[in-house]
Amino acid sequence: MNFPPPAFVREAAEKALSVTAANHYSHPKGRLRLREAIKKVYSPQFGRDLDVETEIQVTSGANEGQYSVFTAFLEPGDEVILFEPFFDQYLPSVVFNGGVPVYVPLHPKLTGAKPTSNDWVIDFDELSRSITPRTKMIIVNTPHNPVGKVFTREELEKIAALAEQHNLIVMSDEVYDFLVFDNKEHVRIATLPGMWDRTVTVGSAGKLFSATGWRVGWLIGPPSIIRPTLAACTRIVFCSNSPLQEATAVGLEEMEERGYLPQAVKEYDERRLTLTAAFDKLGMTYSHPEGTYFVLLDISTVHWPENYPFPESVQGRGRDFKACWFIAMEVGVSTIPVSEFYCEEHCSIGENYARFAFCKDVDTLKRATERLQGLRRFLR
Amino acid sequence: MNFPPPAFVREAAEKALSVTAANHYSHPKGRLRLREAIKKVYSPQFGRDLDVETEIQVTSGANEGQYSVFTAFLEPGDEVILFEPFFDQYLPSVVFNGGVPVYVPLHPKLTGAKPTSNDWVIDFDELSRSITPRTKMIIVNTPHNPVGKVFTREELEKIAALAEQHNLIVMSDEVYDFLVFDNKEHVRIATLPGMWDRTVTVGSAGKLFSATGWRVGWLIGPPSIIRPTLAACTRIVFCSNSPLQEATAVGLEEMEERGYLPQAVKEYDERRLTLTAAFDKLGMTYSHPEGTYFVLLDISTVHWPENYPFPESVQGRGRDFKACWFIAMEVGVSTIPVSEFYCEEHCSIGENYARFAFCKDVDTLKRATERLQGLRRFLR
Repeated sequence: MNFPPPAFVREAAEKALSVTAANHYSHPKGRLRLREAIKKVYSPQFGRDLDVETEIQVTSGANEGQYSVFTAFLEPGDEVILFEPFFDQYLPSVVFNGGVPVYVPLHPKLTGAKPTSNDWVIDFDELSRSITPRTKMIIVNTPHNPVGKVFTREELEKIAALAEQHNLIVMSDEVYDFLVFDNKEHVRIATLPGMWDRTVTVGSAGKLFSATGWRVGWLIGPPSIIRPTLAACTRIVFCSNSPLQEATAVGLEEMEERGYLPQAVKEYDERRLTLTAAFDKLGMTYSHPEGTYFVLLDISTVHWPENYPFPESVQGRGRDFKACWFIAMEVGVSTIPVSEFYCEEHCSIGENYARFAFCKDVDTLKRATERLQGLRRFLR
Repeated sequence: MNFPPPAFVREAAEKALSVTAANHYSHPKGRLRLREAIKKVYSPQFGRDLDVETEIQVTSGANEGQYSVFTAFLEPGDEVILFEPFFDQYLPSVVFNGGVPVYVPLHPKLTGAKPTSNDWVIDFDELSRSITPRTKMIIVNTPHNPVGKVFTREELEKIAALAEQHNLIVMSDEVYDFLVFDNKEHVRIATLPGMWDRTVTVGSAGKLFSATGWRVGWLIGPPSIIRPTLAACTRIVFCSNSPLQEATAVGLEEMEERGYLPQAVKEYDERRLTLTAAFDKLGMTYSHPEGTYFVLLDISTVHWPENYPFPESVQGRGRDFKACWFIAMEVGVSTIPVSEFYCEEHCSIGENYARFAFCKDVDTLKRATERLQGLRRFLR
């Protein structure tokens, strides 16, 4: 992101710095004020009166929260199902904790005239076949990085049914929960019947308040998941930083009355449409993202000169690595090759896509869209 | 601590909050400005020109740094030697990473009229016997929490010789490196001949700048230790919080010209002498701490009524648990029983001691010393 956190949240951080206690250790569960603020905002969304002592854990960024859940629950050899393309931290975090990742790809079915992120779909037979007696956990990520997909209620119900049937823990990474467009509904899998007891939901102040460097996140779940995870967090980081927890609390407390979220989503929507307009102008295919600040562009129509000087580092990787390198060098826009988010076996599925991030101010995005027109002469 | 970070460091934090980039992700190694500041301050102390790219790792508090070293290096069953009494996070952090703690006690030999923390000594035969083919690491903590001991050059040389002989990694927790009294010398084991290549030294902005809630620490060591630890940090927390890294950088950059450290140590010394004066007045034995903000008081002379109503939680623990409870309830001063910092086999060594912390302002300490005089009638 190249824009700042909202002023009222930054000011709250400044104020916290002037309070002695807010510069010192917090409780490993998180500062009570922040847990109360999380309770206030999320209790209605979860349809239950969240308990600040046993159902909310503040973490040092969503990342550390997820890592701590793995530390708390994975025994060597436990299998964890990831939907590909997956947020790249999941894999090593699972492996570092002795787990074995099992990959289930989302399949792009971008057949219509205006494909969306919802056209990346799960093959539920494939998902079902991936479950073994060693499966301990399944990671859901909605809205989804990098696809931008907002999982539908029906999809989540099918995942939930499998989780119930096979007694799986669901880690639901919902750090983009606030960032849903086109009146789509963000459904929390934890709110489906029977799912609260087996689901831990991950949230992030960094995403919510445009402060990715603050390292404040949270987990919401039943005591049976939060208690062991608290033990892990306590040893891994002891506690999260205090002044920015205080500021996050103020952000959550005041965001509704300040109309913060509708404004933030409106700004992201403008960014989204600024970027995708460039693809439309080029006549390139992409899946219009229903959530997050990512969009996947089909780069299979981009062609480069046969003798183009690619560096060693992209040799032997998917075609998308070459395409992303080429786009960066030729037009000066940096993207991520999507096969990076697939295991080796499935990486050909991602090879046709590049991930663009539109978490930039509109001026920057406009400059990027102008540059992208330079691709025209390489399209076939 | 109940006093704030120094104003110039807090102001730097406020300033960082107003810079967009300082609210967003930092490099997993740490912000370059902070690594440069660490290099500037510590290169002379290590007698080498530290490399900011390969020899310095910023961590989310010293705690996460230590945890990450264990994650990077411990294989299941690897043994880690801890000197008792030990900082209580070591044990679970080793165990969570598959390691096996091996305990070597410091023995109190408080025989003179004015014993000091230096009268807690290592039995080097005992240390030598504790090393097995599975020993991977030894944790040194100097100045030492909770003893306040500043390890002498001779002691560190003997530890170093064993580390060399048995090819051990040394994790040297030196978060109290700045807090040494009575003109004692803080020796870094990494600076002993041959030791740089096997030692990782742990530092803490929280201790240095009275900001325990900022969660900024660092590791200094050879690339062979820092590189794998960076991999661990990157997965565990991804990066540390950005604005307080910036502020810490300013703290390190400016502390010399501002005369910050001599003033901070002088203030701690006043706190130390305020507290120990109360013990002197009571005629109680303690080991005068040469470093840190902890002091161990011999509570073997404290006696309570036979039918004193102790709660369930201290039953079956060392005598010090009862003593600390009794002191808290009777005179209103809270301390930590030192057998908590020993393994079960050795806990009788700690049973005679309570840990007092003098990281409080002098007024608070004076109130504590007045209250402590209430112990007089329970001394025998």
